[in-house]
Amino acid sequence: MLQSQTYLVNGRFEGALTPFDRGFAYGDGVFRTLVVQFGAPHCWLHHYRKLEEDCNALSIVCPAQETLRGDIASLVHETDDHVQAIIKIIITRGESARGYALPPLAQPTRIVAKIPMPQYPEANFDQGITLHLCQTRLARQPKLAGVKHLNRLENVLARMEWVDPHIADGLMLDEGGDVIECISGNVFARFGDQLTTPDLSKCGVAGVTRARIMGLAPILGYDLEVRNLRLSELMDADEVIVCNSLYGAWQVRHLANHTWQPGVLAAKLRERLRQDDTVSA
Amino acid sequence: MLQSQTYLVNGRFEGALTPFDRGFAYGDGVFRTLVVQFGAPHCWLHHYRKLEEDCNALSIVCPAQETLRGDIASLVHETDDHVQAIIKIIITRGESARGYALPPLAQPTRIVAKIPMPQYPEANFDQGITLHLCQTRLARQPKLAGVKHLNRLENVLARMEWVDPHIADGLMLDEGGDVIECISGNVFARFGDQLTTPDLSKCGVAGVTRARIMGLAPILGYDLEVRNLRLSELMDADEVIVCNSLYGAWQVRHLANHTWQPGVLAAKLRERLRQDDTVSA
Repeated sequence: MLQSQTYLVNGRFEGALTPFDRGFAYGDGVFRTLVVQFGAPHCWLHHYRKLEEDCNALSIVCPAQETLRGDIASLVHETDDHVQAIIKIIITRGESARGYALPPLAQPTRIVAKIPMPQYPEANFDQGITLHLCQTRLARQPKLAGVKHLNRLENVLARMEWVDPHIADGLMLDEGGDVIECISGNVFARFGDQLTTPDLSKCGVAGVTRARIMGLAPILGYDLEVRNLRLSELMDADEVIVCNSLYGAWQVRHLANHTWQPGVLAAKLRERLRQDDTVSA
Repeated sequence: MLQSQTYLVNGRFEGALTPFDRGFAYGDGVFRTLVVQFGAPHCWLHHYRKLEEDCNALSIVCPAQETLRGDIASLVHETDDHVQAIIKIIITRGESARGYALPPLAQPTRIVAKIPMPQYPEANFDQGITLHLCQTRLARQPKLAGVKHLNRLENVLARMEWVDPHIADGLMLDEGGDVIECISGNVFARFGDQLTTPDLSKCGVAGVTRARIMGLAPILGYDLEVRNLRLSELMDADEVIVCNSLYGAWQVRHLANHTWQPGVLAAKLRERLRQDDTVSA
């Protein structure tokens, strides 16, 4: 473990985790990644609601908000709390004996970890990014679609497809060729004053920043559209944006020999997202 | 953790596991479940070869055979080694900082656990079993098909569909309606002297006992066939068999209002499997 990382398991500093935890055995759990600064997790209510929703999707009892806020407070030191850090929350179904059957008395395992904020290149914000077009396709599983669960081997395989550090993320299609998401973020395409984001009812993770941008769209004067999106359509967009809770929004400039001209939407979105970051904290 | 369970992490008794292990964060690893008795893991070479194959599928370096055999020996006490127990082996990619990118220096995490053998009802062997027909469908992901990896939420969701203890397992179809496997075992259908098992190139786990039965088929006088199998075809089979490394083979007697007459294939397979259990140990 890196020195700069630390975590709580059920409120205990570096508490024990065993291989009988179903998070470990089956990926039977969900997670969240968010930014914390000055002791306040950004967009807390958005993240907590999504955590609850994802726990519900797997019939896992979500810990109380106050419990998680207490854990986060324990990890954030007053001496360095001006520095942004990442808080990762993992909730698993807890331990059980061997086998897939649900243990009647499972107590969910609650993990809250503090991780240093990555240093993203300034150019990602100023000039936009290059996306890799992933060969690994997302399988369609409507029962898990949208949920940020711990079964992420498809993302791992997709991320193994390149080593070039200038590539910021990879675009993933599903098995039918529809554009779904990036490995670590969601996607928006602007066509004139229409803002389109892929439908995620068959696969993909419906992230909190995606939901926030969907809410911002009408405020910024865009018509929002959620639908199946083909790669050829994405290539015809005026601007393509990727987003997540850590960096906000970046413009895509390069994808598979296609280049987009610099636009202003990513910067506009980042500004609005930043204004609201601490509102619900 | 149950008193009767114990485990080694990288050779250390109840060694530390952190939430930064990619097995925990992403299900980025593979596993095996096998029987051990008199200090000898059953069908060791079959299991080790499959572990290597599955590690290769995820580009994880598989630990040496001798290392794993040493771990198993440490867990098996001489005083109780006549009692069958389960050995579960988990190999993950190891720890990494946040993010899907592979750590350049990741050391795989090796977990070997000893778990009590479940007490299966005698009737499962003598009279056969009842299968639940799962509503949860398996998504098609050719890149992971066949591999016994740690992304098992589909199995967890499927197992949540019933509580009746008389149901021994659940039959899973894929999204296209093809019969694939049980939640905890593979499937064979006998049509006269033809033994058919579903093709697993799109999804499912290609288990060691399935491979062993495929090898036994010609010896027992059956023509082996691996192909896509519809549910309606399965219902027309003369006998349906489920199998895994713990119980060997059981006949399916009841599935979704369909009843099969008692047959002799499951007992025949169990006998042959048992004869060979310790051959390659």
